[in-house]
This record gives sequence, C-alpha cells and structure tokens, in this order.
Amino acid sequence: MTDLRRAEVISVGTELLLGQITDTNATYICQRLAECGLPVYFRQTVGDNFQRVQEAFRLAWSRAELVVFTGGLGPTEDDLTKEAVAAALGAELVEDADSLAHLEQFFARRGRTMTANQRRQALIPRSAVAIPNRWGTAPGVFWEVDGHVVVMVPGVPREMRGMVDEFVIPELRRRGWVGEEVIRSRVLRTVGIGEGQLEEMIRDLIHTTNPTVAPLAHVGEVHLRITARGAPQDVARLLDEAEGRLRDRLGDAVYGVDNQTLDEVVGSLLRQAGLRVAVAESCTGGLVGERLTAVPGSSAYFLGGVVAYSNEAKVQLLGVPRSLLEQVGAVSAEVAEAMARGVREAFGADVGVAVTGVAGPGGGTGTKPVGRVFLALADEQGCRTVRSDFGEEPGREGVRRLASQAALNLLRRYALDRRSGG
Amino acid sequence: MTDLRRAEVISVGTELLLGQITDTNATYICQRLAECGLPVYFRQTVGDNFQRVQEAFRLAWSRAELVVFTGGLGPTEDDLTKEAVAAALGAELVEDADSLAHLEQFFARRGRTMTANQRRQALIPRSAVAIPNRWGTAPGVFWEVDGHVVVMVPGVPREMRGMVDEFVIPELRRRGWVGEEVIRSRVLRTVGIGEGQLEEMIRDLIHTTNPTVAPLAHVGEVHLRITARGAPQDVARLLDEAEGRLRDRLGDAVYGVDNQTLDEVVGSLLRQAGLRVAVAESCTGGLVGERLTAVPGSSAYFLGGVVAYSNEAKVQLLGVPRSLLEQVGAVSAEVAEAMARGVREAFGADVGVAVTGVAGPGGGTGTKPVGRVFLALADEQGCRTVRSDFGEEPGREGVRRLASQAALNLLRRYALDRRSGG
Repeated sequence: MTDLRRAEVISVGTELLLGQITDTNATYICQRLAECGLPVYFRQTVGDNFQRVQEAFRLAWSRAELVVFTGGLGPTEDDLTKEAVAAALGAELVEDADSLAHLEQFFARRGRTMTANQRRQALIPRSAVAIPNRWGTAPGVFWEVDGHVVVMVPGVPREMRGMVDEFVIPELRRRGWVGEEVIRSRVLRTVGIGEGQLEEMIRDLIHTTNPTVAPLAHVGEVHLRITARGAPQDVARLLDEAEGRLRDRLGDAVYGVDNQTLDEVVGSLLRQAGLRVAVAESCTGGLVGERLTAVPGSSAYFLGGVVAYSNEAKVQLLGVPRSLLEQVGAVSAEVAEAMARGVREAFGADVGVAVTGVAGPGGGTGTKPVGRVFLALADEQGCRTVRSDFGEEPGREGVRRLASQAALNLLRRYALDRRSGG
Repeated sequence: MTDLRRAEVISVGTELLLGQITDTNATYICQRLAECGLPVYFRQTVGDNFQRVQEAFRLAWSRAELVVFTGGLGPTEDDLTKEAVAAALGAELVEDADSLAHLEQFFARRGRTMTANQRRQALIPRSAVAIPNRWGTAPGVFWEVDGHVVVMVPGVPREMRGMVDEFVIPELRRRGWVGEEVIRSRVLRTVGIGEGQLEEMIRDLIHTTNPTVAPLAHVGEVHLRITARGAPQDVARLLDEAEGRLRDRLGDAVYGVDNQTLDEVVGSLLRQAGLRVAVAESCTGGLVGERLTAVPGSSAYFLGGVVAYSNEAKVQLLGVPRSLLEQVGAVSAEVAEAMARGVREAFGADVGVAVTGVAGPGGGTGTKPVGRVFLALADEQGCRTVRSDFGEEPGREGVRRLASQAALNLLRRYALDRRSGG
C-alpha cells in the first residue's frame, strides 16, 4: 500500500490521431487519478490497430502498475482494445452473463435485433470484472492481473465518466490502490482585475511549492488554481490556508470558488438583496439577459430587458431623447444612463442596467474606437456610469463577452453594497 | 519522396498529466499533419521531466521520421524540451542571434529586463533552424537531422498554431516531406432533423470507405463529416461528389459547410432578402438576440428585441392581452403569436419572432412539461407558430439552446422562401 503505484492512460481511436476530436477523456481520467494520489508519468494515444494497441499496452505495462484504456470497446470491427490486451497477456475472452443480459434488454426495449458484433461487446477477459454500463451498451473491464490493474472504459465521454466515478475509483480504493498522498486543486475566481495587476498583488503568494498557485486568464476573469499535495487531511488544510491568504489580499475581487459561475453568484446576491433587475442592451445584443437567465429560478430577480440595437429602438422603447443621440451619439455615458433609467421604468424594476458600445470589427471612429463600452446602473436614487476600453484585440466576441462581464460585475458590487446596508 | 514518412506528436507538460488542461494542441497538429498526408500512428504525453522527455523522444525517433514536440520551450526551469532532445542526440545548444534580438526587443518594448532564464529561450541545437515567434518569446525549432525532422513548438496555442501554419507545414512541403496521399475533411452542417432520422435518410451514403461519412450530433444540429484520402486533386473531387449526393438527399436541411455557423447563415439570408427582424424572448432570455448580433454588421437586419421574462413585461412592452395570459398561460401558441406580432410592431420590423417555453429544471406541469417551447414568426401577412417538445433531458442550457436553434431555423426557412419569391 505504501509502494508507489504509477498509472498510465492509453486513449484508443484513429479519429484522435487524425485530429478529428480532442481527447477530453484523458484529461478527465488524469484529473481523477491525481485526486487519488496515483501519479501519471506518460499518456499514449494510438489508433484502432491491433498491433499498435498491443505495442502501447506492453510499454505501459512495463512502466506502470495501473493501465487505463479509454476507447475501442464498441460494436464495430475497429473496436479491438479488449482483444489486443487479452492477447498480449495470453488470456481468453469469455462472455459475461450480466453484460449480455444488459445488451439483450437494451435492444429489446428499442425493438431492435442484436447483431453478432453487438453481442461481442459482452466479452471480457476470463479473470476480469465487467463494469456495468448504465449509459450505453459496451461494459467496461476492471482486471487485476499479475500485480497490475488494467482498466478499460468506453470512449463515449458520458459512459467513461460514469464508469470512472461510480466503479473504477471506488474499486481502486477498496483494493488499496489509492495513494496515501493525494493532489487536490481549488480554484478561486476573480473578476474586475487584469492578470498583470492581479499577479502584482499576490506575487509573494504565488512563488510557493506546496500548495502552488497558478493564475489562469479567461475572458474577463482570472482564476487562481491552488494545488496541494499530501495526506488528505493536510491537503484540505493547505488549501484552506492558501485560500484565506489570497482572499485577505484580494477581497471582493474573488467572486466564487471552483465551478461557481459569475451568472450564478450575481443571481444569488440579487435574490438575497431582494432586488429585481431589468437590462437594456445594445452591443451585447441580449448576452447580459441570456447570462442572468442561465440560472434556474432567475425569474425571482430578472424581469426582462430590451435589446435596443437600433437608435429608433432606444428612442421608442427606452425613452432615450432623440436629441441626446444626435448630440453625443449612442456610445456615450449619457445614453447609457438614459437607457438604464428607461429600462428600469419600462419594467418597473428596482435596478436598471445598460450596456452600449462598439463591438467591432467595424464601426469604430477616432473618438469612439472599437472596444469602447459604457455601462450604467440606475436605481431609485440615481445612476452611476462606467467607461471601459477593451480595445480591438479581443475581437467582436471578446468585446461583447467583456462588456457582459463588466455589467454583471457592476450588478454584483451593487448587490454586495446593498446587502451590507451600504 | 515516395517513401512513407510517419509522424509522431509528443506533448510536454505536467499540467496535462494532472488533467489541469486539455491537450487541444495535439488535435491541431494531428489535423494539419493529416491534411499533409503524414500519418500519425502514436501520440505521447509526458511531464516536464528531463529523463522522461528523452525516453519519449527515443521511442518516437525509433518508429517515426517526423517528431513534433509541443510545450516545454518557455523561460521557466521546467521548460527543458530542447535540452533533453539535444542531449539525446548528442548535439550542442547554441544561441540563435535572430531569436536573441527578438527577445531583447520584446523586453525593451515593455521596459522590462531580460533574465538569464528568458535569454535561455534563444538557445537552439547547432544544426537546427529557429522558427520565429511573432506572438510571444520562445522561438520554435525545425531540425532536419539523420534522416529525421524534429520540430519543437511552444505549448501556448496561439504560438503553436502560428508556427505550424506559417513555418512548419511550408518548410516540410519545401523539403519534400509532405505525402502524396492526403486526407481532407469537409463538414456539412444540418439543422431541423434529428440524428436518428438523418441517418435513416442517408444510410446507403454512409457505408462507404473513401470518402467516409460520419454523423456528429451537436445541440440542435447534426454535422456530417466527409473524409477523403488520396492525391490532392482526387480528394477534392471525392469530397465534391459526396457533398452533392448528400445535398440531393437532404435539401434545405443542410444549412452550411465547415465552420459556417447558423448565426452567420441566417444573417446573410436576411440581408439578401432585405428583411429587418425583431425578436421577443421569454425562456431564452436574450440568447436569440445574442446569436443574431454575434455576426458583424448585424445592424443591417436586426433592429432589436424584448426579453419579456415576466408576464407584466409581456403585457406592457409587447401588448400581449392580459386576458390571454390568464386564459391560456404564457407558454402557449397564442401568446407566442401575440409576442411575435407585438415585437414586430414595437420595432417597426418586417418580421417578428417569438420564443416562449419552459426551460426547467423547475416550472413544468402536467399540461406544460419542461422542454415545451412555442415559436412564432409574424410578418405583414400573418403568423405561423411551431410547438417543440425537447423534454427534460437536455437540461436548462440545452432546452434554451435548442429553442434558439429552432427560432433561427424558422427565420432561415422564411428567408429562403422569400428569396425564392415564395
């Protein structure tokens, strides 16, 4: 149990080698193995070829105790992972009764006949255990043999993930194959601070070895991945301590943890603050509304919005004075303010938020360059406006995404203030 | 030149083996190699470790003539791809003058001092050629040595792609390393037909070997990837012929080719038909507007929209009769029609499109289950409505995406009819 057991992942599929699909399965499996303290030193990818699958397997067997295959278990003639591996170890394939029953049911329920190739999926090496497939047809294989464990799971991501989570990891744990030293990560998600500035702020907290802290820049937000290594209880403590230090330094710039999205966090803050919102969008074309309503139950705080893409719509639906549009143009703080006030009134909302800008690639001028965006937030007391210059570089999609990010962050900070009675 | 030259791709980076990032670089490189007729039989992934990078390299060298590395060229101490490969071949690393000049300029422009580690990036094997890095700091390496070509490009995707496209592929071609038999793919994108039904329609056209036709299901659309193999001129003909056969069978269900998006295609049809559109959205929350405005120049055909998430908004902004909402409810063909007519009028548009439905996961009832969506399209002559039942299974995001897809397809078919004078 204290021996270091090494793992190796082999992805099987000619479509991978042709670059027709990206291998997200290997990512997933490596992540789960890291969490279990099983180090992976090599990964291989090989096509649907009997000899080459064997070649990859023999190499992995020679340098790793745990070999995990993904792909090549299906019903087509190209699917030969089990055959190649069994032959390499001189083992026989036998029909697994439970897997066969599952296949029969699967086809019966759909009123289809099972072909000989379909039936072949129920074959597994004689001393192996079949992993049930609740999501499709081909069973997986868990095979402890000659001091090794060989795992084979399908290439269909949902089936692979289900088997890894529900069977492979628990079974490795049960058999004492899980390492005593685990690797865990936690992600702190920040918004409103650029990557460079953020790194300046936490430079001394980044150059550590356990845990490590790695900034990852996304569009409009920077994530900090904290990764710790050690015994499970130590790892939890290391992650908590690092999170505390980073939060002390960064304050409200941290909006969430791990998979929390800004959409969710803003929604939950609005709900807590009892605020009902309406949005007026120009350059974002509906993106801010789409993000606010991506969260189940958003009708509790989102009333609706107006996408005022044309000037006429800004006048007719939001009550922006025509003279203002003629005087200062649609991309201005004044028009953003009028839009926010207008949409707040039109929907009878507590808060109105507006976005107007130049998404590009065309439409920029000397005084209103591509990437300039004005945001406004109006409540019963007044209105605040913000100007951002994202530049041309992010492209149309990037500018729109950055603008929606800024609008959501404006709402987030407003709701935070309101919650704390500000 | 007529010898078969095999390629192998090695991705270097411990973060790959920890599952912290997905290896999209290998996908890209494999795709480009396939297009050049260079077969890839194996791919390896290895961490930032001198011995193991060497081990992977020796294996690749023994079974492939072209070895392409991605990753491990940067300025940190973990970056050791060049060092490991040069040592494995007993070659010396020397400072490349052009690369050093580029680095010096890079840091001077930013007012930063170049560290010793930064400078180390200018080292390349003595007989190799440096690949200029127009996007960052570390140069790549193109090294023809002992009947092999060894390529090293950075792991930063933009730098990797730039070097592969602008240098590696042209240089392989120039040196006669590009195969005479190439592999090319073309993707036909369809909308409005489910995967099962589509496969039924083209069953006899799918079971071919050159070209092959593979259906790939996405949310709300199915793509058909045609892949042909052969001499460049034959491949073009094979792809054209297969495309013709599939189009004959599928007609208007094919909306685009390769990277064309439905958003773009709908936009260009609206422009051609001279139609100006407004949208009224409920469950999609702005997604239809967001997609229509994702295309540069969309102001030519998109006037704007109303996100009427609450019933009050449907009444106030779209003129949906309150009695209708009380009688048949917001998720109904009648309300969809009233929304489409209302938004058309509010914006003075040629066409009004409306979406209302139950995105879930909550909010479903016996008569209005999760996944039920009504669409409507109103013009000067009248209104058509469509009901779709997407079910619970796609989840909230899936139902919203499917609903937006259906709305765009409704617009597409309308614009197609109008264009042909229907």
